[in-house]
Amino acid sequence: MGFVTIRDVARQAKVSTAAVSQVLNGKGRFSAETKKAVRRAAQDLGYIPDSRAQAMRSDSTQMVGLLVPDLRNPYFADLVSSMETMLYEHGFGALIGTSAESVKRQDDFIMRILGQRIDGVIAVPQGADSSGIEALVSRELPLVFVDRRVPGMDTVPYVVSDPYSGLREALELLRRYGHRRVAYVAHPSLGSFSVNERAQAFRSLAPTYCGPDDSAVFSCDDSAASRQSTIDRILAFKASAVIFGYSPDAIGSISLLRGLGIEIGSRISLVSFDDIDAFRLLSPQISVISQQVQLMGRRGVEILMDRIAAGRSTSSQRSQLVSIPTVFKRRDSVGRLS
Amino acid sequence: MGFVTIRDVARQAKVSTAAVSQVLNGKGRFSAETKKAVRRAAQDLGYIPDSRAQAMRSDSTQMVGLLVPDLRNPYFADLVSSMETMLYEHGFGALIGTSAESVKRQDDFIMRILGQRIDGVIAVPQGADSSGIEALVSRELPLVFVDRRVPGMDTVPYVVSDPYSGLREALELLRRYGHRRVAYVAHPSLGSFSVNERAQAFRSLAPTYCGPDDSAVFSCDDSAASRQSTIDRILAFKASAVIFGYSPDAIGSISLLRGLGIEIGSRISLVSFDDIDAFRLLSPQISVISQQVQLMGRRGVEILMDRIAAGRSTSSQRSQLVSIPTVFKRRDSVGRLS
Repeated sequence: MGFVTIRDVARQAKVSTAAVSQVLNGKGRFSAETKKAVRRAAQDLGYIPDSRAQAMRSDSTQMVGLLVPDLRNPYFADLVSSMETMLYEHGFGALIGTSAESVKRQDDFIMRILGQRIDGVIAVPQGADSSGIEALVSRELPLVFVDRRVPGMDTVPYVVSDPYSGLREALELLRRYGHRRVAYVAHPSLGSFSVNERAQAFRSLAPTYCGPDDSAVFSCDDSAASRQSTIDRILAFKASAVIFGYSPDAIGSISLLRGLGIEIGSRISLVSFDDIDAFRLLSPQISVISQQVQLMGRRGVEILMDRIAAGRSTSSQRSQLVSIPTVFKRRDSVGRLS
Repeated sequence: MGFVTIRDVARQAKVSTAAVSQVLNGKGRFSAETKKAVRRAAQDLGYIPDSRAQAMRSDSTQMVGLLVPDLRNPYFADLVSSMETMLYEHGFGALIGTSAESVKRQDDFIMRILGQRIDGVIAVPQGADSSGIEALVSRELPLVFVDRRVPGMDTVPYVVSDPYSGLREALELLRRYGHRRVAYVAHPSLGSFSVNERAQAFRSLAPTYCGPDDSAVFSCDDSAASRQSTIDRILAFKASAVIFGYSPDAIGSISLLRGLGIEIGSRISLVSFDDIDAFRLLSPQISVISQQVQLMGRRGVEILMDRIAAGRSTSSQRSQLVSIPTVFKRRDSVGRLS
C-alpha cells in the first residue's frame, strides 16, 4: 500500500482536490452527496488529512501510539504499563489502543491513530495479513514491533522474546523430576507468530528431553469445548506434565483440572508461558516461562526514542532484531514423579 | 482555570501573538531563546493550539479519550476494555491513557490528549486537587466521569457504583453465618472518593449487623509493611470476617494469611470489592462485592454518545448522576462460624 494523496481521493470521489480539502476541513458549501462521496473515498483509501503532515512539519508532539492485542490479558497490561511508564520518563505521553485480537479492529485503530498528532508507534502486531500494519509500515513514522513478528515485514525493528532458553530450562527440570511424557498446548487460531514459534521450539527441543513418542502438541482455541477436549486428550495421552504456550489456556485449564479433582503438582505438573500475577496467587503457584516483559518493553521504548531523535528524514526503517531470552521460574506446580 | 488564549501565551512569553502562532506551527524564523520561551509559556499555561479548534470546526473525529488509573489493576482493565468495545460498536475509536494513580501523570496525560483530535473524554478521575481535571471540565468537550467522584465537580455527568446494596448483602450473609466481629480494610491514601465512600458505607451499616464494638475499620496502604501490620491488627481484634474495600489489598493479604497458615473460609471469612478474574481462580474462590463494571462502562459510553450527538454548541455540561447498585457474589471464602 503506497502513500495515499489527496489526488487519489479526488479521483475516486470524482471531485477536485480543492473540494476534497474543503470538505475534509469542514469548509465550503457542498451537497450532502458530495460530502459523503469525499469522506467515503478518504476512508476507503485510508487517506490521512493534514494533521499528520502538520505534526511532521512542526516540532515533536511528544506523543506515542501503543497498540496491544488485549488489555484484559495481564501479560499485555504489564507490557503496555511498563512502556507507558518508560515513555513518561522520557517525557512522552502514550495513546493506547487495542486490537481485541481482531485484525479488523487493529486496522481501524491504526488508521485512526495515524490521523492523530503522534511521533511514533510501538505495536504488538496482530495477524499476518493486515492492511493497517501495511499502512503503518509504509509511513515515514518511527515504528517498533514488540512481542510478535509479522512474516515478511523485515524492515521494521523488532523486540521479541526467544522461547528456547526458558523452555529448555523447563524441560530439563521436568526430566530431572522423572517426567518422560510431556504434552504441549498450542493456540494456532490466534495467528500469532510468537505463540506459534513457542510450539515450534517445543517440537524441536522435546525429543532431547522426553522419550521417543513421549511428547505431543495439542491445539486449543478460546472455546470452553476446545479446552475441555484438550484436557481429555492430554489425560488420554497419559502425560505427567503439560506446558501451555498461551496463558489464557492455562488459566482455563487449571479450573477444569480442579473440577476433575486432578491435583496440580502431584498428579500432573504444569508450566505456562507468561509471568502474570495470577500464577503466583494460585495454590500451588504455577511455574512460568517468563518473557521478561519489562526488559522487552524497555528495549522497545529505547529503540523508538532513538528513531524519533534521529529525525523523520533519516527514519527510513532499518532492520533490527532484538531477542530477549525467556527465563524459567520454578514453582510448586512442578513436582517430582513418584 | 479559565480557557487559555494565544494572548495569554504571548503575554507570558513577551512576544506577539503572531510569533506564538508561528513558533507553535513550526513556521517563521526565530531565535532558539524565543522558541523556548513560547513553548515553555504554552506548556506552563496549558495552552492548546489550533488542532482542537480545528477538530471543533470540522466534523467529528470519531475518537474518544479514555483515562483510567492503572491498567495492571484488572478491575480497570475490564472497565476500559468494555468501554473500548462499546465505543467501537458506536463507530468510535478509543485513545487510552493512565494516571498510574498519580495526579501529576494524570494531569500531563489530560493536557496532552487535549492537543489531540478527539470528540470527548471518559475519565476515572484521580485525586481531588487536579489542574488537569479542572482543565478538562472547563473545555467545551463532552465529558463523563466513571467510577470515581470528584468533590465539587458537580457539573459533569457521573456514573458511579453504589456500595451500600452489595455491602448490605455481604453483611447479612456474614450475620446469618454467625459472624459478629467484622473488620474492614480501607485505603485512604489512594485519595479515591469511591474507595473512601465504601469505608463510610461500612461504618454506617456495620452497627446493624455486628454487635456493639464488634466492627472496626483498619487503614492500609500499598506497602508490604502496612499490609502485614493490617493483618496483625485484624487478628489482634479477633475478627472472624474481613471485608476489603480495595482489591489489591485483598490480593496482598491473601498471600500473607496463607503464609501464616490461616485458612480462608474456615478460620477467617473474606470478602473483597471488585469482581476480578483472579478471585475466581483462587482456592477457595473469593466472595466479591461487584460494581457491575460492564454496566457502568455501558452507561458511561451511552451518556458520552448522547453528549457528542447533541453537539458541542449545546454541551455546556448538565449535572447527571447515574448510580449502579453493587451486587454481592457469595463464594467459598465465606464460611459458617462453627
